[in-house]
Amino acid sequence: MSCQGVCEDYNIDLFYDTVLNLVKSAGELIQEKISSRNKFIEMKSNEIDLVTETDQQVEKLLIDGLSEEFPQHKFIGEESVSSGSQCCLTNVPTWIIDPIDGTMNFVHSFPHSCVSIALFINQKPEIGIIYNPMLNQLFTARRGKGAFLNGEPISVSGKTTLSDALIMMEFGTSRDPEKGTVVLENQKLLMPQVHGLRALGSAALDMAMVACGAADAYFEFGIHIWDIAAGELIVKEAGGIIMDPSGEK
Amino acid sequence: MSCQGVCEDYNIDLFYDTVLNLVKSAGELIQEKISSRNKFIEMKSNEIDLVTETDQQVEKLLIDGLSEEFPQHKFIGEESVSSGSQCCLTNVPTWIIDPIDGTMNFVHSFPHSCVSIALFINQKPEIGIIYNPMLNQLFTARRGKGAFLNGEPISVSGKTTLSDALIMMEFGTSRDPEKGTVVLENQKLLMPQVHGLRALGSAALDMAMVACGAADAYFEFGIHIWDIAAGELIVKEAGGIIMDPSGEK
Repeated sequence: MSCQGVCEDYNIDLFYDTVLNLVKSAGELIQEKISSRNKFIEMKSNEIDLVTETDQQVEKLLIDGLSEEFPQHKFIGEESVSSGSQCCLTNVPTWIIDPIDGTMNFVHSFPHSCVSIALFINQKPEIGIIYNPMLNQLFTARRGKGAFLNGEPISVSGKTTLSDALIMMEFGTSRDPEKGTVVLENQKLLMPQVHGLRALGSAALDMAMVACGAADAYFEFGIHIWDIAAGELIVKEAGGIIMDPSGEK
Repeated sequence: MSCQGVCEDYNIDLFYDTVLNLVKSAGELIQEKISSRNKFIEMKSNEIDLVTETDQQVEKLLIDGLSEEFPQHKFIGEESVSSGSQCCLTNVPTWIIDPIDGTMNFVHSFPHSCVSIALFINQKPEIGIIYNPMLNQLFTARRGKGAFLNGEPISVSGKTTLSDALIMMEFGTSRDPEKGTVVLENQKLLMPQVHGLRALGSAALDMAMVACGAADAYFEFGIHIWDIAAGELIVKEAGGIIMDPSGEK
């Protein structure tokens, strides 16, 4: 089903203004909690896949706030899915939420954590927002309207040669030795060929760095939809491309 | 020779106020230049060891400003040493300068570059300043007076177990395959044992992250004095320790 016609029935401006206010409140909560050195932390799949009570509070803040205004909307939230909710994207307006991307950074007070939220309608992204309150970096995009950092238009670097590229990568949150080997093998191939490799510990912020031209590419295997839903729109609206490892869209 | 008695003859307050003003001017210059996508870049030892005209301008700004106020002081600056100046630390007050630590980041407009400057008197650090103007992170320390981020006291995390640690590392600016292998081997050993690995691309900022407790340790081989001179004092004043790979001071 095409979005043409259907999207016109939705007030995307209102959705955008509403979510932006909620994201700012979420950012205040994250910033207030990050400096505490005694956070309440639980393990998810293993001892480096963590969730804090702040992840859960931020997800609740966003879902409650949006549900109240838009009771028909649906949600796919990292922490709700971890707790057993279904992860199902239909044509209905659906918010895809990572309440704190970079939870490990948040746990350590390493200032590279963010809220990542996207709105999909008819399975297409309409809104993408990534907000790191600690460093005051608000990345926003709406489909067809460009991408912005703190209100200023941004664009990807446009670099096309690997030898001039700064590449974002991550070491992952898996303890599977096979996945660790893949990370090291990819890195071994890239290291002698590129300008440099950087790892911030947040997929969403890695993508945001590509969108604003501060890095030239980002790759990762085994990512979830909430890690990249907002970043995908922001990168595309900034002139970049997203592909799966086979080179497909 | 002990600093006792000798340092009392020096007006460290004046040195500190003077250098802080110069560092802020240097920061303005870096921030003004970083967003340009057409920087004038030269290679140093290889195609990933770079210098820009801004590195040279910042070093000149700092050395000229300090020389004017304190004509007896000496300097060890990354770019001056690269251009053939001697790297010699005597008992005379000596400023050790990395005008832009994270030059590759600066080249890419990746917002993790900083001025790093330290004052040594009688071969001991008296002042250390690391300033990232893009993210408004000013780390300062004076010997015996604690470490600060934007004027607020900071301290290291105090973590003592590797399994709970967030570790800063770098991939280096060498094209020597042997050094690359060492990086990968260390990483392979650490990956399954720690909370996570992060790479910002600036030794000084990596150390600053340790000083403020956002990371728990940083390691690198083949570092220069200007990369760590300021960071050493800031980490120590924040309660941390610095050691060489053999475990010696």
